[in-house]
Order: sequence, then C-alpha cells, then structure tokens
Amino acid sequence: MRKVYFDHAATTQPDRRVVEAMLPYLEETFGNPSSIHDYGSAAKEAIEKARARVASLINAARPEEIYFTSSGAEADNFALKGIALGNQQKGKHIVTSQIEHHAVMHSAQTMEKWGFQVTYVPVDKYGVVDPADVARAITPQTTLVSIMHANSEVGTIQPIAEIARITRERGVLLHTDAVATVGIIPVDVKELGVDLLSLSGHAFYGPKGAGALYVHKGVRIVPFIDGGVQEGGRRAGTENVPAIVGLGVAAEIAKAEVPGRGAQLTPLRDRLARGLLERIDRVYLNGHPTQRLPSHVNVCVEYIEGESILLFLNMQGVAASSGSACTSRALKASHVLTAMGVDPALAQGSLLFSLGRGNTQEDVDYVLEVLPPIVERLRQMSPLYAARKDS
Amino acid sequence: MRKVYFDHAATTQPDRRVVEAMLPYLEETFGNPSSIHDYGSAAKEAIEKARARVASLINAARPEEIYFTSSGAEADNFALKGIALGNQQKGKHIVTSQIEHHAVMHSAQTMEKWGFQVTYVPVDKYGVVDPADVARAITPQTTLVSIMHANSEVGTIQPIAEIARITRERGVLLHTDAVATVGIIPVDVKELGVDLLSLSGHAFYGPKGAGALYVHKGVRIVPFIDGGVQEGGRRAGTENVPAIVGLGVAAEIAKAEVPGRGAQLTPLRDRLARGLLERIDRVYLNGHPTQRLPSHVNVCVEYIEGESILLFLNMQGVAASSGSACTSRALKASHVLTAMGVDPALAQGSLLFSLGRGNTQEDVDYVLEVLPPIVERLRQMSPLYAARKDS
Repeated sequence: MRKVYFDHAATTQPDRRVVEAMLPYLEETFGNPSSIHDYGSAAKEAIEKARARVASLINAARPEEIYFTSSGAEADNFALKGIALGNQQKGKHIVTSQIEHHAVMHSAQTMEKWGFQVTYVPVDKYGVVDPADVARAITPQTTLVSIMHANSEVGTIQPIAEIARITRERGVLLHTDAVATVGIIPVDVKELGVDLLSLSGHAFYGPKGAGALYVHKGVRIVPFIDGGVQEGGRRAGTENVPAIVGLGVAAEIAKAEVPGRGAQLTPLRDRLARGLLERIDRVYLNGHPTQRLPSHVNVCVEYIEGESILLFLNMQGVAASSGSACTSRALKASHVLTAMGVDPALAQGSLLFSLGRGNTQEDVDYVLEVLPPIVERLRQMSPLYAARKDS
Repeated sequence: MRKVYFDHAATTQPDRRVVEAMLPYLEETFGNPSSIHDYGSAAKEAIEKARARVASLINAARPEEIYFTSSGAEADNFALKGIALGNQQKGKHIVTSQIEHHAVMHSAQTMEKWGFQVTYVPVDKYGVVDPADVARAITPQTTLVSIMHANSEVGTIQPIAEIARITRERGVLLHTDAVATVGIIPVDVKELGVDLLSLSGHAFYGPKGAGALYVHKGVRIVPFIDGGVQEGGRRAGTENVPAIVGLGVAAEIAKAEVPGRGAQLTPLRDRLARGLLERIDRVYLNGHPTQRLPSHVNVCVEYIEGESILLFLNMQGVAASSGSACTSRALKASHVLTAMGVDPALAQGSLLFSLGRGNTQEDVDYVLEVLPPIVERLRQMSPLYAARKDS
C-alpha cells in the first residue's frame, strides 16, 4: 500500500543532515554549555553557531536576538506573558485575533485571569485580519499586538507588514507566531517589521524539542522560565544542545531551499484542491484563495465528521488531520473555522492536507483516488446525509 | 593526557542504550503524538511507555501522574507557579528554603512580584533545613512548601519525609526538586510523602530536553505552558518524543542500577575528600558529613578563586565546577554556601567535584596529583595569600 504523509502542519520528518548533525551532541559532546571546561565550551560553541543560523534565516540583525525555547508553544507563552508582565506599568491591554494558535489564545486567556484586558479581533470569511480592526482595538493601555503570520489550519497569510506600520506608529509591540511559515515561505523580521516572532524547528524538517523566540534588541521582556543564567538570563534550563544544533542545521537548509519550496508545492496543492472540488460533491475549500501557504489544503466535507474520514484514510496509508494537531484529540469544531463564519456542523467535517517537500503528484493522485469512495461510504452511514436526501 | 569528568552535577553523558532507543524517533518514527494516524499512534505509544517507566522509577501510583517537561527548571516553574496560582483562593503564601536551585528560588521571587508572600527558611552549617522551621513558617494562607531533596552544590540530603509529615498534618502541598537525586539514589514518592516532585533526564544518563513533574492525583495545578491539549491539557507544546523516549530508558536503567550506584561512588567520593583535606592546606569540606549524596565533594579552597582553579584543572584534562552550572557564568558567591554561613570570600574559592558511574579510583588519584600544585601556584599569585603570610 502506498504511504502518503500529508500532515506536515503537525510535524515534519527531520532532514537526514539535521539528524546527522545532532548525533555527536547526543553522546560524545555531551557537556553543559554553562560549564567552564572543554566539554562545556564545545556545547556552548555549538549552540551559538545554531543561534547565528536561525538569526540568518529570519534576517535578524543580531544572533543574540534569538532565544531558544523547547517549542513554538513555549515561545508564544514567553512572548505574550513576558511582554505583558514586563510592560504592565504602561498598561494592561493586549490585542490578538480570534484565529490564533491555542498557545497564543490560551496565554491571552490566562492573562485575562491575571487582570489584563484582551481584545480578540475578528477575521473575514477567508480568515484574514483587517489591519483597520487592529488599529481600532489599540488603546493607550495596549502594550502588545499578537497576530500570527499564517494560520496553521487554513493556511491564510496575514498582512503583518501592514499591521506593523500601525503598531510602530502607535508605539505598541508586535509579536507574530510564525510557526507555520518559518522555513516554509520566506520570513524576514525586518520586512515584516515585527518586534517578536515565534518559530518551531520540527515544523520545517528540524527536530522536536527546539523552538525560538526572536526578540528585537531593546524590547523589555521578563523571563518565562525562571532559574539559571542561560540565554542571557532570559530563559532558564539546561539547553537542549542536540535539538538546538538540529534547529540550526534545519535553518541553514531552509535558507537555501525555501525560495524553491513554494514552486514545488504550489502546483501539488492546487492539483489536490481542484481534484477534491471536482470529484466530491459538497466540499468547500477554506482559507484565502491566493494569500495562502503553498502547503495547505483545508476543506469541509458536508454531512460527515473529519475524524471518521481520517481513520479511513489512515487505513489506506494516508496521514492527514482535521486541523491543528494540538487540539485533534479534543474533537471540537475548529475555533478558526467558526471565527471565519463556517457553520459549526460543517466545521466538524474539516480536513487538512498539509504537503511537504517529499510529496509528489502521485501522492496527490492517490489521495484523489481513495478519498471519494471513503466520503461516499461515510455519507451512506450518515443520518444527516439521509435527512438531506429525504428533504 | 588523562581526561577526568567530575562534573556530573552539571550534566551526564547519555547511556549508549538511551541514545540507541532515541535514534528511531529522530527520523523514521517522527509523527506528532496528537495526530490521528499511524505516525501519530507510534509516537504516542512511545511516550506512554516512557511515562510508565518514569512513574515506576519514583514509585508513582499512576503513569498519568507524570507530566513531561523540557527540563528540571521547567518542572520547578510549573510546580511553584502552577500550585500557587491554582490554589490562591486558599491563600497566597509559599514556604521554601534559602538553598534551593535558582529555578525554584527565582520562581518564588517572581511569585512575590505577583503579590504572593514567600518565607525562605534557613539552613544549618551543613545545609540542612530544620523541619521545625518549616512548621513554624506555615500559616493558614500557605498553599505550598518546596524543599529540595538534595542540594545540587553541596550534596546535603534534606529530611523530606519528616517535612512531609508536617505538611500533610497542616493540609499544605509539598513539592521537592529531586533533580539531584532521581536516578542517583533511591527516590520513592510514597516513602517521601511528597505531592509534587521535579526530575531531569540529563542528570542521570538520559538526554537533555526532557524532565518531568510528578503531580499526585487530585492535586489542583494550573498549566504553566498554555496551548494545546498535550499532557492531559496541563502542558502544551508538541512533545519532544526522542528525548522523552530517552528519559524513559534512562529511568528503566536507573531502576536497575541505582541500588548499586551508591556502593560504587561512596568510596571514590570519600577517597577524594580525604585526599584533598590531607594534601592541601586550608581546604574545607562543605555539606553534611553523612547525610549527603554519594557523588558530591564540595570544598572551599582559601585565598583563591574557584574559577581560576577550574581553568587550570581543565588544562590538565579535569572537568569540574564551582557549584551550580546554571550560575557558573555569573561568578557570584554561591547562595547555598552563604546561607550555610560560609564567609563570602571563602565561598569564592568553592570547588565541586561530582562523580559518576564511569569514574574510577585512578581518576580520583589523578585529581589528587594535579590539584595541589595548581592551588600552590595560584596562591603564590594571590595578594590575599601574601597578606596572610605577612600577618
């Protein structure tokens, strides 16, 4: 049976070069980077090299603007809580959107419990934040705006540079969760104009266990993980040296390959989207028609549940998801789709195919071949579908 | 030149079996444990197996009482902030000690900024917390007592079971930072009577990037990293599958080997301590004479700085530290030694040799051979030493 991995939004297979670079740091070069001896220096050197590589990938001016974390989620928590708490003498108001990743959204909700105000700006039917809404939401008490670069479920890319012009003008900091874009499409912190940016290694052929937060020099942020003096005193805990080394190599590879990744993925994405719409009745494509990631095809299939389709697809060797992996076991309608105005019943039938560099046209054609009979079979079992035919 | 690694308190070299168990999860079995397909299930199974192994090592009743984190520091932050914030309706007072790891101490200081009260109980000259001091510090507003199991700098073991009898009686939760003990000496959460316990994989021949917090069933704790539904909704972020697998294997190995580790290390530790006291003038052993880890020899060498000694030792192939790796680049006198009443000037001359399972008597004898001339040479250059001789 053919195996098709169409769940790159959940995680990617680390590049062989990434794994090979990590191996020495798993065993021989095992020192603690904070130690004052050769074992420590070798580890320290390795993480500083990785820091420079990550800085270079996103065009940060200085390697020391990169703070390694254990994940994109930790980077998001660090950004929201670190900025809000570090700047509360100015005010206690945050602006974010209704379609953020839960790491941002739930951090914002925690801040509300701590006495902060949060405004969640809406999105249009394509999942796009209107910069004018952000501008209207900013008050003199606002310290931070956090809007994701691209939505990891529907792939819609946000007008971050436009939002940055507003936040700069209003003297407010701008964070973007770029976990879905860094290493996939070009990301340049200067062009975007952001003050903080979260990224995650395993999203772009790097290892799990290493993410980073970019913090523009001079930005006031308090540590999220308190403790030792690692990461300039801003993130405690012994550094995960092998994973950081792997993230650095993934960044270097991405820098070379990202310009070509869109050209490889876009035709596959479009072939898949077109094929689904042609071959399956009552299927709706989610997200913006053009301002979208080259990797994502998100559809709603009416009358059936996404999870059931996934189980049948899995039996045919196809790995996909119903949205965010971080909520997939929660079995709730996606907050992203409902914010876009998708009917909650329809949103239950959401399917996300996220393509990656190993995928081929044959993979796409295989999915287009196996999916329609699965949908047909599930619809035959669906009382909703039966009700529709009767009506 | 002989290479002697006496810095096991900073980090340990992962066991070959640990690394081998991790390799498949770095590359082939790369799925996201939250994904609903075979790639995801394989990863999920692996982390649940690791969870059961870690639970077994510390004799936790249920695997689901183990929450994986990225480090011991994160586990400490989770424990302190998660318990304090989750139980603030009862009160806003925490009790801890003056010699905790900075991950606990700085978390407590952060809680003070958030309006909590913290009592830092003192220690005696051996670094031991008096349970009576803990009892006196508890008020009706106290929700949490956090006292480390053993101090990672001087090796003194605390009377946790006695403290637990007090906290149970008073209806207060007890957390212990057991990063210095789990996998080194027997640790049993039921015998200790603790409600929460932090551990770190790289402290006992496991990988960096994986720690855990044990949380007794029914204890009210709020998440520290907000976001997705991983770890029962209590710790967001894609799980670091390879590191968690490695931690699980390290736990399994430790379960078999820990009973023998003390018998191997204690004679080496005692030979080193005795040799240092015999061969070097004005050297003082820190920590409790008997209630101590089998791995730690912490001394103060009068008139010279620990960091200078370390640089010379490193040139002779010996890796040691001046205390905690997490503060080693801060070059301040250890808060642990000063809390024990060691004169700050003398504390500047602290040296920590932390032994591990690969060490031999030859390693000890080599250090006893190379260290005295280094001390002699540094003292000749020391104005403090000259002043003493003149007086």
